[in-house]
Amino acid sequence: MRTNFLPALIAGLALSALCAPALAQNKHIGTPTGAISSAVLVPAGSETFYVSGITPPVLNEGAPAGTPPEFGDTKTQVAGILKRIDAILTAQGYTFGDVVMMRVFLVGDPAKGGKMDFAGMMESYKAHFGTPTQPNKPARITMQISGLVAPGMLAEIEVQAARAKK
Amino acid sequence: MRTNFLPALIAGLALSALCAPALAQNKHIGTPTGAISSAVLVPAGSETFYVSGITPPVLNEGAPAGTPPEFGDTKTQVAGILKRIDAILTAQGYTFGDVVMMRVFLVGDPAKGGKMDFAGMMESYKAHFGTPTQPNKPARITMQISGLVAPGMLAEIEVQAARAKK
Amino acid sequence: MRTNFLPALIAGLALSALCAPALAQNKHIGTPTGAISSAVLVPAGSETFYVSGITPPVLNEGAPAGTPPEFGDTKTQVAGILKRIDAILTAQGYTFGDVVMMRVFLVGDPAKGGKMDFAGMMESYKAHFGTPTQPNKPARITMQISGLVAPGMLAEIEVQAARAKK
Repeated sequence: MRTNFLPALIAGLALSALCAPALAQNKHIGTPTGAISSAVLVPAGSETFYVSGITPPVLNEGAPAGTPPEFGDTKTQVAGILKRIDAILTAQGYTFGDVVMMRVFLVGDPAKGGKMDFAGMMESYKAHFGTPTQPNKPARITMQISGLVAPGMLAEIEVQAARAKK
Repeated sequence: MRTNFLPALIAGLALSALCAPALAQNKHIGTPTGAISSAVLVPAGSETFYVSGITPPVLNEGAPAGTPPEFGDTKTQVAGILKRIDAILTAQGYTFGDVVMMRVFLVGDPAKGGKMDFAGMMESYKAHFGTPTQPNKPARITMQISGLVAPGMLAEIEVQAARAKK
Repeated sequence: MRTNFLPALIAGLALSALCAPALAQNKHIGTPTGAISSAVLVPAGSETFYVSGITPPVLNEGAPAGTPPEFGDTKTQVAGILKRIDAILTAQGYTFGDVVMMRVFLVGDPAKGGKMDFAGMMESYKAHFGTPTQPNKPARITMQISGLVAPGMLAEIEVQAARAKK
């Protein structure tokens, strides 16, 4: 009887492999030249990583609270925000390449006639997404809103990341 | 010994079927008369499809940039946006029926006293969701924001779709 | 031959257990003293529950439509919204502890100089998240927007919840 256990075990191991979630990759959809993906398809069997809306770090501790010099311009604030998001991702073994959705909320910049500084945001964004070393680009939405939790904040960014279970 | 492989194989096939993700459906929760679902439950074992915020197509190429005639009114813009989203979904084998969450961002319409044209948005929305041929209704949120990437844009829509792995 | 079915069955049952999605928990990341999580990691094999943006209930039926007394102040509105969200969650067997992402949209309060009443929102939020009986805190984003579907509404909240398939 013992000898008959072997084929069952082999069949079992094969099935076990079949049952394991495939380490499928996120599928980024869009044009090669676009700064963002038009969509990202996350395969079944993936974790989802929800990151809170991240605000910019204080740039100049001595600046009057709520003034633009406290946090810097939009480009600077977005750079600081992305650095913070990177740290949160990295602590869980994630990278910018795993970001599937990004929501960018900008406040009108007095130095830009009260309009959001879309170009400034893009400068800092492009340093991390769609680069030779990090080619993945998330789906994204960007809009101008009325205000954030502290005066002087011109940007807040929220991301979701996802990857196959390891 | 060979004859004993058969029951193991049968047990194996049965287990394989058990292990395969069930092709469960999204569960739409809400009242039959509502235009949206109050919530949608996406079963485990589903893909998630994140679509970028989609802006309206240019309606009148000759119109001055940033003027309402360039993109049309809210109803027209939402119709154009949904057509674009449909194309993105269809390219991956998805349909409007797979949309589980929709976020609608409207800019105040000067022709509506600076308020968002909620009714105009609804006219175009209702043509595609909760219809006899496409009864599914997503969870949704709608709000008025300060501005979008280009002047004259009155609407941007972002969706997530999901379906069981095939 | 029949006696040889037993080891196959045992192997099969063991494999079945291996294949079943582990009832992994959402991982809340952040500091113990923070009111929100900086991020929440949802394991593979989880359901996702998308709740629509929920608006506040009418507080005073007799109040003129669109006036602050109709819906109450921000704290009151958020309390009413959370009660509504709780009912939607509960109807599907979910609880506030399963909420992984929360998006809070506030309209400027005339009684607060046109700024969003962040403190008022927090009072109602803290009654349900990060308490001794419900210690889980979602990832969250909060911002001030221009307007909601009805005048007088100062808050709308949208959540996603997730839990391992049971």
